[in-house]
Amino acid sequence: MAGTDKTKAEIQAAIQDPMQPAIILVRPQLGQNIGTACRAMLNNGLTDLRLVQPRDGWPNEDAVKAASGAVAVTENAQIFDSLEDALHDIQHAYATTARSRDMIKPVVTGENCAKEIRQKASQNGRCALVFGPERTGLNNDDLTLVDTLVTIPLNPAFSSLNLAQAVLLVGHEWYKLGLDHVEDRKLVKGKAEFATKETLLHFFEHLEQQLDLAGFYPTEEKRPTMVRNIRNLFQRMDITHQEVQTLHGVISSLSGRRKGEE
Amino acid sequence: MAGTDKTKAEIQAAIQDPMQPAIILVRPQLGQNIGTACRAMLNNGLTDLRLVQPRDGWPNEDAVKAASGAVAVTENAQIFDSLEDALHDIQHAYATTARSRDMIKPVVTGENCAKEIRQKASQNGRCALVFGPERTGLNNDDLTLVDTLVTIPLNPAFSSLNLAQAVLLVGHEWYKLGLDHVEDRKLVKGKAEFATKETLLHFFEHLEQQLDLAGFYPTEEKRPTMVRNIRNLFQRMDITHQEVQTLHGVISSLSGRRKGEE
Repeated sequence: MAGTDKTKAEIQAAIQDPMQPAIILVRPQLGQNIGTACRAMLNNGLTDLRLVQPRDGWPNEDAVKAASGAVAVTENAQIFDSLEDALHDIQHAYATTARSRDMIKPVVTGENCAKEIRQKASQNGRCALVFGPERTGLNNDDLTLVDTLVTIPLNPAFSSLNLAQAVLLVGHEWYKLGLDHVEDRKLVKGKAEFATKETLLHFFEHLEQQLDLAGFYPTEEKRPTMVRNIRNLFQRMDITHQEVQTLHGVISSLSGRRKGEE
Repeated sequence: MAGTDKTKAEIQAAIQDPMQPAIILVRPQLGQNIGTACRAMLNNGLTDLRLVQPRDGWPNEDAVKAASGAVAVTENAQIFDSLEDALHDIQHAYATTARSRDMIKPVVTGENCAKEIRQKASQNGRCALVFGPERTGLNNDDLTLVDTLVTIPLNPAFSSLNLAQAVLLVGHEWYKLGLDHVEDRKLVKGKAEFATKETLLHFFEHLEQQLDLAGFYPTEEKRPTMVRNIRNLFQRMDITHQEVQTLHGVISSLSGRRKGEE
């Protein structure tokens, strides 16, 4: 996957966003799952990892291995004895949970959760995303500590996600909101220069001249429409200067061959 | 992660969306990666999997195991000898790739790719999302066959995703667009009934009466503002009938104790 082009300073600024939500993993079991969650965090510029009673302790070799170089996350992870402690500086906590257990809590989608976090951050409100243990999820005491539940809309017939995927989806909603407007439909062109209109028109003239010679147009009346249609076709291509030269060659070659055949 | 509540018919309809994009994995290597990609697909209602020359053949035991029950995908996977063949019925192909290799192709974000796929589907245009082999990605011949490149905006300092995560992020953008407006900030309330205004006002009267008896209000002048502030506080709670009864008990208990102390 390609990232967007940014300067090193912008990258650092993104990573060090002081108002980013903390990611709190409560009693996570497998080190591998912590590691892949770390990757998903750093993919989305999140570095504030808090672990509450990780089953296999910390640091965890499996986690570091699975994190594949997301050291900005693994090396700064903080360990807490309880979710209360992990939330000490947090103003609003969101929990992803598969079961609502009849708790009276507001529920938001991942996308709207991300919007709320950005909005609260703009008012200096620090947020956390809380994720439960792999199999059991958060217990009722954990859930009582959070303010809002997050539900990610998924195929109701197959809605289970692993820890890293849940972190990835919510984290990505947050990350996307921090981007400047991403330019779209921009062509990847490397060092290539798009053809100027002059170059393009010169090509059209070459093509049409050869088509005339080849007797392409059935009648003089139909010629203008056919010319327009062909010009529009090439116009749509967002063609580069080099590609126009290639097409000149194609036409010269084809018309030369036909001359030879005739 | 909780899914949204839907009927079985709606679930089937979502899964069988005939205009869903095909997911084409070109020369995938590890069965496990194919399996986790299958899960990510089914999470988002995608079932049209096409495999081009999977390294270890098909069916693949590791893939089925990693798919954790996403049989709607694994059992219907189609195998092709070439990307050309896999694209036979596709009108518009999108490729996710980390390297643009100076190809002249339009580039869209995952989100806008999903919008385009939905829009083309509404005009009966079938689309495919093409993913390359784990290590090398798509080669130039593969890329020449696709129309548009997809780039997922991620932390530029750490932007690599595994196959399943790439499928998950783009697939989820597509899935979300197919949902009806998801109701948000709805409270999870199970069978609980929210308190009526009558119940709530009755509670306020009980509380205020006890506060009067306890000499809570410093002056009669300050009383109305203090009453309003306290009423607003409880009003914000979106309280249930049962919770109001609990609060009645709390007040009776507290005022009873204070009387005893005095």
